[in-house]
Amino acid sequence: MTEGYQIKALLFDVFGTVVDWRSGIIRELSDWGRDSHVVADWPAIADGWRGLYQPAMERIRAGNRGFVRLDILHEENLCDIFVQHGLNAPTGDDLHRLVTAWHRLDPWPDVVSGLTRLKDKFIIAPCSNGNIALMTNMAKRADLPWDVVLGAEVAQAYKPHPQAYLGSADALGLKPEECMMVAAHLDDLDAAAELGFATAYVPRPDEQGKGAGAATAAKGSVDHVADDFNKLADEMGC
Amino acid sequence: MTEGYQIKALLFDVFGTVVDWRSGIIRELSDWGRDSHVVADWPAIADGWRGLYQPAMERIRAGNRGFVRLDILHEENLCDIFVQHGLNAPTGDDLHRLVTAWHRLDPWPDVVSGLTRLKDKFIIAPCSNGNIALMTNMAKRADLPWDVVLGAEVAQAYKPHPQAYLGSADALGLKPEECMMVAAHLDDLDAAAELGFATAYVPRPDEQGKGAGAATAAKGSVDHVADDFNKLADEMGC
Repeated sequence: MTEGYQIKALLFDVFGTVVDWRSGIIRELSDWGRDSHVVADWPAIADGWRGLYQPAMERIRAGNRGFVRLDILHEENLCDIFVQHGLNAPTGDDLHRLVTAWHRLDPWPDVVSGLTRLKDKFIIAPCSNGNIALMTNMAKRADLPWDVVLGAEVAQAYKPHPQAYLGSADALGLKPEECMMVAAHLDDLDAAAELGFATAYVPRPDEQGKGAGAATAAKGSVDHVADDFNKLADEMGC
Repeated sequence: MTEGYQIKALLFDVFGTVVDWRSGIIRELSDWGRDSHVVADWPAIADGWRGLYQPAMERIRAGNRGFVRLDILHEENLCDIFVQHGLNAPTGDDLHRLVTAWHRLDPWPDVVSGLTRLKDKFIIAPCSNGNIALMTNMAKRADLPWDVVLGAEVAQAYKPHPQAYLGSADALGLKPEECMMVAAHLDDLDAAAELGFATAYVPRPDEQGKGAGAATAAKGSVDHVADDFNKLADEMGC
């Protein structure tokens, strides 16, 4: 679908594709609970917190709210999910610590080595719904060697709104066809492909919990399928 | 002026501070002239091109024009300066090659080693009037190890407009007092200091040509003065 164009940049989904958000958020919530003497079902709260993510962005995608960065949505959603679980909404330093849990997620084991190889040949950038500070702090902690941070805050739109992808490519001065979207989620890749982006599917079967499994891409629906970032680097001739 | 705050990010001016724009632009213009059999006074055209930079941004800072990225201003200004020198305004591939000369500038010799040391302890980011693509392509070619690209395009304002600095700090979720502006130009540092940023002056006496000299900072007007980025790294305990 992108014949005749040379790929110059790889744009990466991050939560699930680059980092294991679920186990990291459960760890951060549990640690805070222990330090704060709060007992709760932290895996359920982690899943509930993530569950409020799409509805919160949808209000912005639908134009019912102006763009605000993801840290703000995470803060609002955290308070909601705590209250739903019969806990007091966190405030002050507790709120800051918990919201920035998303800045402290660990990458899948292949990520740093794979990105380092891919960076030799391509511009590599997150094209995430996470905001610039979140992406920068995460990269700093986890040694993710991004060339530049793109995505929702730069484009002022949340994926899968077309502007999130188009605004990221445009910031690089590139056509969609010169960019490849890399994600563990087929809906993200479908939205990018619709706009002319090349696509690479890297399934992450442990995203929803060890052994939870991942969808299989329908034949021809994506340009590349790779088991991890090193396999993607092989595939891309790096 | 920033007592009690811990510096978390260093924001760098780029043209003049990180890269030797003048000799790079003269080289790129001369190479193009040779390839295109166009004879002209390339150093004068380089200085004239740069001379149109502030007036072009000033229209935007003053609110007389909406924000457009620097590549666009460079394109318009290049055509103007060519015509002023009695040359045809370049078009097509020639125009693209010449405008992207700004993406292919070389860093001063201390830059890569100094930034690499500073990156261990601080978030390091360009806070330049150059656009995201320009900064990304430049970094890729010159191995500048930025954590994130900030500056005019992210903030949608040109330095020294306060929003260029404030929007860059805010994108990191940081207060101005948690950021240090590093520049070879005292007016850039004055504008940042006015907003609460810490400041480091790194004079680049060869910016306007070998041995042209640099201004001396008035005592107490900046927080740090360092001869190069490695000296700055020493000064910052890296």
